Amino acid sequence: MLLPAIEIPQEGSRKDILSAAAQCFMDRGYTETSIDDVARRLGATKGRVYHHFASKADLFAAIFRTGLEMDYAAIAPHRHAPGPAVARLRSMAVAHCRQIIVSRPYQRVVWQGVQMLLRGTTNPELRNELGLLNDGRDGYERIFRDELERARVEGALRFDNLSLAVSLMFVTLNSPVFWYAPRAGETEADIDRLVFQVVTHAMRGLGSTED
Amino acid sequence: MLLPAIEIPQEGSRKDILSAAAQCFMDRGYTETSIDDVARRLGATKGRVYHHFASKADLFAAIFRTGLEMDYAAIAPHRHAPGPAVARLRSMAVAHCRQIIVSRPYQRVVWQGVQMLLRGTTNPELRNELGLLNDGRDGYERIFRDELERARVEGALRFDNLSLAVSLMFVTLNSPVFWYAPRAGETEADIDRLVFQVVTHAMRGLGSTED
Repeated sequence: MLLPAIEIPQEGSRKDILSAAAQCFMDRGYTETSIDDVARRLGATKGRVYHHFASKADLFAAIFRTGLEMDYAAIAPHRHAPGPAVARLRSMAVAHCRQIIVSRPYQRVVWQGVQMLLRGTTNPELRNELGLLNDGRDGYERIFRDELERARVEGALRFDNLSLAVSLMFVTLNSPVFWYAPRAGETEADIDRLVFQVVTHAMRGLGSTED
Repeated sequence: MLLPAIEIPQEGSRKDILSAAAQCFMDRGYTETSIDDVARRLGATKGRVYHHFASKADLFAAIFRTGLEMDYAAIAPHRHAPGPAVARLRSMAVAHCRQIIVSRPYQRVVWQGVQMLLRGTTNPELRNELGLLNDGRDGYERIFRDELERARVEGALRFDNLSLAVSLMFVTLNSPVFWYAPRAGETEADIDRLVFQVVTHAMRGLGSTED
C-alpha cells in the first residue's frame, strides 16, 4: 500500500481536536456542545474524535489541563528571576495575560470548568478530574500570591486583604477571555501594547507605586 | 368567603418569582433552568409562574431589566453631585459595587445575558428583548465612561485607552458576581469594607492618585 499514512492519525491531530473543541465550548458552553459539533468544526468524523477522547468530559478535562500547562509554561522563564518581587510579579503578569490572549478558547474552558465546580453543576465523571486540575490551578495562583505578599513586605504594593488582592488581580489579567477578539491586521506589537495596558491597570490596582 | 386573599396573587409574588428564578439561572445557567425548577425553588406551582410570565425567556428578560433598574437606582443619588469628576466616579463606583453584592443573582443574569448576546447563543425570542436591554446597559456604562474622561481631563486619572479603562473598571467592580458569597453573621459594615477595597483597587487601576 502506497499511502498508509492516511490511516495513521496525523501529527498534531490530537491538538487540532483540542483546539476545535475549545472553540466549541467557548462559543456554546459545556452543556450545549456535542461531539458532533466538535467533529463538524474540525471537518472530521466523530470516529476521529473518539479515537483520541473517550467522552465529552474527557475532552473538556484535556483542554482544561492543556490551558493550565500553557499558563505554567508562560511564567516559567520569569518566576525565579532575581531582583525585587514586584518586578518578578510584573513579568509573570505580562506572560500570563499574553497567554490568556493567545490561547483564549483554552483559557475560557479553564474558567468555565472553575465556574462549574463552584456552582456544583459538574457531573460525577467530570468532578474528580476537574477537582484535581483545580488543585493545579490553585498551585499556579499561589505562585502569584507569594510574590504579591513578598512585594507588599518589600513596600512595593499596598493592599489590605491578600486573598482579595489576588482575586482582583486575576480578574483583571484574565478579563481578555471575555472582551478580547482578534482584529484583522493585528500585530504582535498591538498585542504587546494591549497586554501592557492591562498589566499596568492590574499593578496599579494592587497599589504599585512603580509609575 | 372569609379568606379570599388566598385566591389573589400575593403582594410581592412577582418579585418572589423573579428572585427564585434569578437564583436558578445563577446556579445552573439559562439552558439548564426550567420553569419547573423555578416553581420548585419557590415552593409553588408552575401555574403561579405562568400567571406572571409567559415563558422562560420572558422571565430571564424581566430579571435582566430589574437588575439594570437596580443599578440605575443605586447611582441616581450620586451621578449629578457637584465637585470633581473623580469624587463623583468613586461614589458611583461604591454604589454600583454594593448593588452588585446585594443583588448578586440579578446581576449574574445581566452578565449571562450579555455573554449570550456576545456569543450569539440567544434564541430569536430573547434576542430582540435582550438587545434592547443591552442598549440600556450601554447607556449605564456611558454614565461612568463620561466621568472617567472628565476625571482624566481634570488630571485625576491616567490611562491610555478610554474603552479599555471602562471595561477593566467594570470587570473589577462586577467581579463579586463570581467570587462573593454571603457569610454567616456578616454585617453591613463588613460589606462596606469589602466594597471599599474593591473600589480602591478599581480607582487605583485607573491611575487615581487620590491615595
